[in-house]
Amino acid sequence: MIERAKQGVKLRIVQKFGGSSVADAESIKRVARRVVNTKQEGHEVVVVISAMGDTTDELTDLALQVSKDPRPRELDMLLTAGERMSAALLAMAINDLGFDARSFTGSQAGVITTEAHGDARIIDITPGRITSALEDEDIVIVAGFQGVSQTTKDVTTLGRGASDTTAVALAAALKAHHCEIYTDVDGVFTADPRIVPGARHIPEIGYEEMLEMAASGAKVLHLRCVEYARRERVPVHVRSSFSDKPGTWVMDQKEDHMEKPLISAVAHDRSEAKITIVGVPDTVGSAAAIFDTIAEADINIDMIVQNVSTDRPGVTDISFTCPQANVAQAVEALEEAKEKIGFTKVVSNEEIGKVSVIGVGMRTHPGVTAKFFGALAAAGINIEMISTSEIRISVGVAAKDVDRAVRAAHTAFGLDSDEEATVYAGTGR
Amino acid sequence: MIERAKQGVKLRIVQKFGGSSVADAESIKRVARRVVNTKQEGHEVVVVISAMGDTTDELTDLALQVSKDPRPRELDMLLTAGERMSAALLAMAINDLGFDARSFTGSQAGVITTEAHGDARIIDITPGRITSALEDEDIVIVAGFQGVSQTTKDVTTLGRGASDTTAVALAAALKAHHCEIYTDVDGVFTADPRIVPGARHIPEIGYEEMLEMAASGAKVLHLRCVEYARRERVPVHVRSSFSDKPGTWVMDQKEDHMEKPLISAVAHDRSEAKITIVGVPDTVGSAAAIFDTIAEADINIDMIVQNVSTDRPGVTDISFTCPQANVAQAVEALEEAKEKIGFTKVVSNEEIGKVSVIGVGMRTHPGVTAKFFGALAAAGINIEMISTSEIRISVGVAAKDVDRAVRAAHTAFGLDSDEEATVYAGTGR
Repeated sequence: MIERAKQGVKLRIVQKFGGSSVADAESIKRVARRVVNTKQEGHEVVVVISAMGDTTDELTDLALQVSKDPRPRELDMLLTAGERMSAALLAMAINDLGFDARSFTGSQAGVITTEAHGDARIIDITPGRITSALEDEDIVIVAGFQGVSQTTKDVTTLGRGASDTTAVALAAALKAHHCEIYTDVDGVFTADPRIVPGARHIPEIGYEEMLEMAASGAKVLHLRCVEYARRERVPVHVRSSFSDKPGTWVMDQKEDHMEKPLISAVAHDRSEAKITIVGVPDTVGSAAAIFDTIAEADINIDMIVQNVSTDRPGVTDISFTCPQANVAQAVEALEEAKEKIGFTKVVSNEEIGKVSVIGVGMRTHPGVTAKFFGALAAAGINIEMISTSEIRISVGVAAKDVDRAVRAAHTAFGLDSDEEATVYAGTGR
Repeated sequence: MIERAKQGVKLRIVQKFGGSSVADAESIKRVARRVVNTKQEGHEVVVVISAMGDTTDELTDLALQVSKDPRPRELDMLLTAGERMSAALLAMAINDLGFDARSFTGSQAGVITTEAHGDARIIDITPGRITSALEDEDIVIVAGFQGVSQTTKDVTTLGRGASDTTAVALAAALKAHHCEIYTDVDGVFTADPRIVPGARHIPEIGYEEMLEMAASGAKVLHLRCVEYARRERVPVHVRSSFSDKPGTWVMDQKEDHMEKPLISAVAHDRSEAKITIVGVPDTVGSAAAIFDTIAEADINIDMIVQNVSTDRPGVTDISFTCPQANVAQAVEALEEAKEKIGFTKVVSNEEIGKVSVIGVGMRTHPGVTAKFFGALAAAGINIEMISTSEIRISVGVAAKDVDRAVRAAHTAFGLDSDEEATVYAGTGR
């Protein structure tokens, strides 16, 4: 893949740059030069762009100044101005370098979505205007994060991480050779280099492992983007916008590709909270009533643990984790159902974290759990909750233990490198 | 017209608010209340909105930071974000007051234009989405100043004063009862109240007179907007967004409506410059060669005067006026053609002004010119140039004489009132 690109074959490439890459006029010009380089290598280039720096937050503030509860349709109308502006500015900057570039809104680019304002899903892409601009040898700039509702024809936004998804979806629709996601790190590492200085760069990783990493708190790629890439088999090259180093290719892995390590990476997540429902009657249907309540409030839960209390017969405590942003809503929904379910009280705790080991190798190698838990025990870390998939084991631990747990697992599975990973300071996405 | 509106009949009304009316969150909320009042009176309301305060200038600055010569297509893509934002914010603010409002871009509103980016003309309006929103009893907000090219499907802007034109064009397409243009004055006066404190408010004026006033420097309504209103017979109510006073109705005038005053208003214009071409050979075709040169540079000229010099036989001086913004361009074009035309030199002078008296009454009353020129002579003001239409006489005078000339004409034609006109300070459009 990387080789073919180097041999001067004309490829169709989708490149995505985030808000921090286009924070001001200077950075827009830098992105323009980067895009032009790819064009000069002989490729067809489609660029997906986010809103400049803090634009989205500033527009949201403005909305809250005129309305305490802005309607989602209008909020989408407002926020989509952000990517429209950066797309037009990037096109101008590229034109200024002597290359033809044309910007398109999500709607113009044919990004058709559901009508769920603020969290719409891409249904289809009809990229007629893009392909015709590419035929004209133009560089195409597409406003990310936005689309148009199939039913209402209103402008929609796609929710968090959505510019990545726009890029991958466009790459699929345009049958692009691959999709490049530019970020502030050199790709995917075996652990967060800020926690594990000896974390190793991963040159290539499969979709399943990347999906588990994204779901386990690795922020380099958004979950929905990886899901889309896996479904459409789009090779994704995650790389730094601050260096020319090769990043990480997320793509199909040949089974006999190489001897896979047992564990590919250690991920962590501090964005969840634990909610405990105390004194639940230990009867058939109690747990179901609780999770029905949470499901009706449209809250995703992650790990669940139920402790049958030995000293209080007939009652049990149920704990689960959910995003911290949903805690107030979850507690409110549960309090409303308190009488019906018949529990004693609800308590929440945000001082928790999740540490996960991920690797397709564990499919064929038993003993991973034992090794992982042994490493945590040796580090004196208490495991509060557990969840697993075929290629992942996650544990819930106290927030203060997260860093040590990540380091212990990284060492135990032989992932430590002698070299320090490069961290680009202060460039959060 | 005004009576019918008061009797509680359901009317379809288009209201237009400019950038100074929506400069910040507070003023957006004030406009929202005003719009809601009209809705509460039982009317269907369509609002056309400009970009907030200085947004357009700020976006233009940003464009110039990334490109020395931004392509017009991309500049339009960028600038149209401005009205999109104010339209969405106004819709939110109206929703917050408990009323349903939906915002639409020019493209969504069906504003179809030529493809002349930055100065597109409206070709057609297909307001299907607007009428269907009105059928749902929604208040409709439309982003002014913008449309979509019929041929390229690209987003266009309509040039200066274009939000007024959007409003009038929409009123015509929607068969609205009338169009309200909100501004910072109580409508049209017999002269600029800042120059003539005793200027009288004009409750009603015909399209032709308003057209001549707009062309003569009265800034209250843009020329293209009045042209559109006249062509489509749209009654326009120009009124203040800072008071509830009735403004000026621009509409068809019944011939026997009332005894028309000889002169309806005195207008002035300081935006022009005089260019003099000295030593032009007094031969057939010399003047034509000069004005061909100017026409090829796409510059509109207004007044022309030719002085055959008696002491230099065979040569003549030709002067004309054009917008100050075009002076450099005009001089450059003339200098290039100097050898071909064979004149001595070009000089320009921005210290000039134009004063016009306007009135349909002059069609039937001779002697207006004598009275006008007599008043100027009595005030000791030298007339440098003259141009006339059927209902207008304009003179070019020294810039320093403009105010005195306006006052002299206003008094001579009996327009002075004893009351002082209200001027809303510091609210420029």
